[in-house]
Formats: sequence, structure tokens, C-alpha cells
Amino acid sequence: MGAMIKGVMLTPLSIVPVPEGDVLHAIRADSPGFRDFGEAYFSTVGHGRVKAWKRHRRMTLNIVVPVGEILFAIHDDREGSVSRGQTQSVILSRDNYRRLTVAPGLWMGFQGLEEGLNLLLNVADLMHDPAEADRLAPEAIAFDWETT
Amino acid sequence: MGAMIKGVMLTPLSIVPVPEGDVLHAIRADSPGFRDFGEAYFSTVGHGRVKAWKRHRRMTLNIVVPVGEILFAIHDDREGSVSRGQTQSVILSRDNYRRLTVAPGLWMGFQGLEEGLNLLLNVADLMHDPAEADRLAPEAIAFDWETT
Repeated sequence: MGAMIKGVMLTPLSIVPVPEGDVLHAIRADSPGFRDFGEAYFSTVGHGRVKAWKRHRRMTLNIVVPVGEILFAIHDDREGSVSRGQTQSVILSRDNYRRLTVAPGLWMGFQGLEEGLNLLLNVADLMHDPAEADRLAPEAIAFDWETT
Repeated sequence: MGAMIKGVMLTPLSIVPVPEGDVLHAIRADSPGFRDFGEAYFSTVGHGRVKAWKRHRRMTLNIVVPVGEILFAIHDDREGSVSRGQTQSVILSRDNYRRLTVAPGLWMGFQGLEEGLNLLLNVADLMHDPAEADRLAPEAIAFDWETT
């Protein structure tokens, strides 16, 4: 894990065993970190592939990984933040089943760690709006992505 | 497909191709069929296994299948409904990528069709409440589930 960035939260989630097929919780209107409902979408990421970096100016992310294994890196360069300059990483999967909440203003990137499908669900408080997001190339922020 | 039941809606969804991993739309606050946000959860169903029947008294379901292939059956026994007595079926998968909206009061069941993972996301307008759902055994409503 390393650093803990202000505005990043990890919440344990339940997997309910059912003989015909398990049920996996994701997020409720009364969940910690839930702000509002704007849009739910899936993002996939290939084995070893990196999607980085993106910063949302207004959107809060609530991310769950029901399939595969995904490495997330979050970097804080917010002026005046107590965790400014820090980078935090976390791996989510069904075996480490938690929800990752990321506040607006933080840089995030992620990488697929499994050879099969790596799938995340983001339940965001805003609908997609390219104007509220900034992007940087993977090399722009130093981070040791997994070599595959 | 067969019958079309009043209160059942299928909405085409986009898959955005991205070299590092595609993005799959699910639902937005302005989507047809969206009512409110209560809870998002995943349900899995094994190959050939059937989860049936369940009727929500108040919950509207909005279901997407990003992984595997799932056969849904919906039965209408609502008093006074124009489609009373009808049963509608639909298969959802990434190759047939649509959102299934099911109004309250309808019986629904589903079956996993792929040997690997069959995964649905439901973005429901209510939080889980066992008191608003009724259940029947699979045999209680006639339907030709796939034999595997």
C-alpha cells in the first residue's frame, strides 16, 4: 500500500455465497463514499496494459473489480494537500474484494494483472464529460508498473 | 424473443473500443428506464444453473451482462395487464450488448449459458429489501430452460 492519500478510501465489500452463483455487492445509496448517481460503466484493461494518467476535476470515482485483478496507482499533486507528492497503490480483485473511492483532483492510473479479463465497474457521481478530466502520458508521473 | 411484456424494455448500449481495454456503457442518470439509484450489485450464475423465480414489488431492475451469456425469462401475471399470461425471454451478452429494464410486479428468472463466468450487473432504484420480493420455485412457472 505505502502512502495513504487524503480523499482515497477503501471499503470492504461482501460476497454472498449462493449455490447457483454468488452475489457480489458493489455500492448502495447509503454506502460510505457514495455521493450521487451520474453514470455506471465498465472499463477493461489487458494483461500488462496501463491506462494512465487521468484526473477528474469534479467526479468522485467508486470502483469495484469483480473479474480479474487490477493494480491502481493514485498520485496527489493538489496544492495544499497534506498528502501532496505521495503516490498510493492498491490491487483489487475478487479475492481482495473492496470498493475504491477516489475524490476529485487526484491523478489515477491502472493496469491489468491477469491474463484473462480484467474488469472494473465505476459508479460515478457525474455523467461522462470529457471537459472535466485531464490526461497525462504514463511516463509523466513516476510509478513502477508491473512488468509482464 | 416471442412476447413483449409491458414494463420490459431493451436498450442498446455502446462498447467503446480502446487499445488498452474497451469501455462498456451500462446506465446513466438520463438513460431510458433509469428511475433512481438505490443499489448496484453483481449476480453470477453457473453454466446451466437457474435462478428463478423472483418478483420485486417495488424495485425496477436495470440489468447489463458484461461477461458470459445469460438467458432471462420474464413472466407477467399482473391483474389487468395487457400482457398478462405472457412469458418473454431474452439473451444478453457482450455480443448482444443491451440493457434490460424490468418494471416491478413481474416474475423474472435467469440461467447461465456459458461454461465460464456469467455475470450481470443490476443497477436498482432501491436498496436490497427482502420484504419487497416474492419467490417461487423454478417449476412454478412453465419455461423451457436450456438443457446443458
